[in-house]
Amino acid sequence: MAADLLGTRTITQIGILVHDIERTSQAYADFFGVEKPNWFWTDPSDKAQTEYRGSRSEARAKLAFFDMGSLQLELIEPDHEPSTWRESLDRHGEGVHHIAFIVEGMKEKIALLERGGMPLLQKGEYTGGRYAYMDTFKDLKVLIELLEND
Amino acid sequence: MAADLLGTRTITQIGILVHDIERTSQAYADFFGVEKPNWFWTDPSDKAQTEYRGSRSEARAKLAFFDMGSLQLELIEPDHEPSTWRESLDRHGEGVHHIAFIVEGMKEKIALLERGGMPLLQKGEYTGGRYAYMDTFKDLKVLIELLEND
Repeated sequence: MAADLLGTRTITQIGILVHDIERTSQAYADFFGVEKPNWFWTDPSDKAQTEYRGSRSEARAKLAFFDMGSLQLELIEPDHEPSTWRESLDRHGEGVHHIAFIVEGMKEKIALLERGGMPLLQKGEYTGGRYAYMDTFKDLKVLIELLEND
Repeated sequence: MAADLLGTRTITQIGILVHDIERTSQAYADFFGVEKPNWFWTDPSDKAQTEYRGSRSEARAKLAFFDMGSLQLELIEPDHEPSTWRESLDRHGEGVHHIAFIVEGMKEKIALLERGGMPLLQKGEYTGGRYAYMDTFKDLKVLIELLEND
């Protein structure tokens, strides 16, 4: 034990896959008594440099965020290009896709997890940082997303 | 909007269904560099007064908890009696089952959600409080657990 692979145990985000972000955003807004946030598209692939299972992908997703106390709840409606979002939605249906952690040293963290038998599934850039989804499902029964902000 | 059905947006717990709590607890302990917690059985049904879909159930589950920053991660290995745990595990496999919120006025909250088209799935007592799983999946794409502590 005592590997502490991420250097943190603080969950910063729960990501949920949905078919219709407009409808589910409205349901969350109604349920929690908050304004419905605007959803937005992730960056196009030339900017996001999205890689899925080792190949470049044009995949994008609509995202909407809700502040839930100490963490964010992220709704994700993917397009039909290859991505972990689309694959999970097609295979398992709507529901929780990942929990996210903010890390330092993204490259080293990815290498560390891969050496532990948890391969990189998808990675990309966003304004101000980058993300990586690691295939931790076999061990942890949920995917882990690493977030590194500049 | 502005219903604010629960009176809170603070997620206190994420619950994950597993087939083998011993193995998955060890994987979490290894991953996050913490001691493996001991799992324990939920109370027997005469004490827990478990009701599942309106009928008394003998269902119990093994539980293990990890502190993850501001919330708890709960691993759940159910027995084979009727429960939302067993039903979800059989239908959807391992993975996230619910997010939990601490509420006041359990009866009123259950009634409020049921009027909103989100029926009670399962409820029971534990030492120091009670829980209710509400079927919020259609709207929120995850089940919500209400927790009321005395």
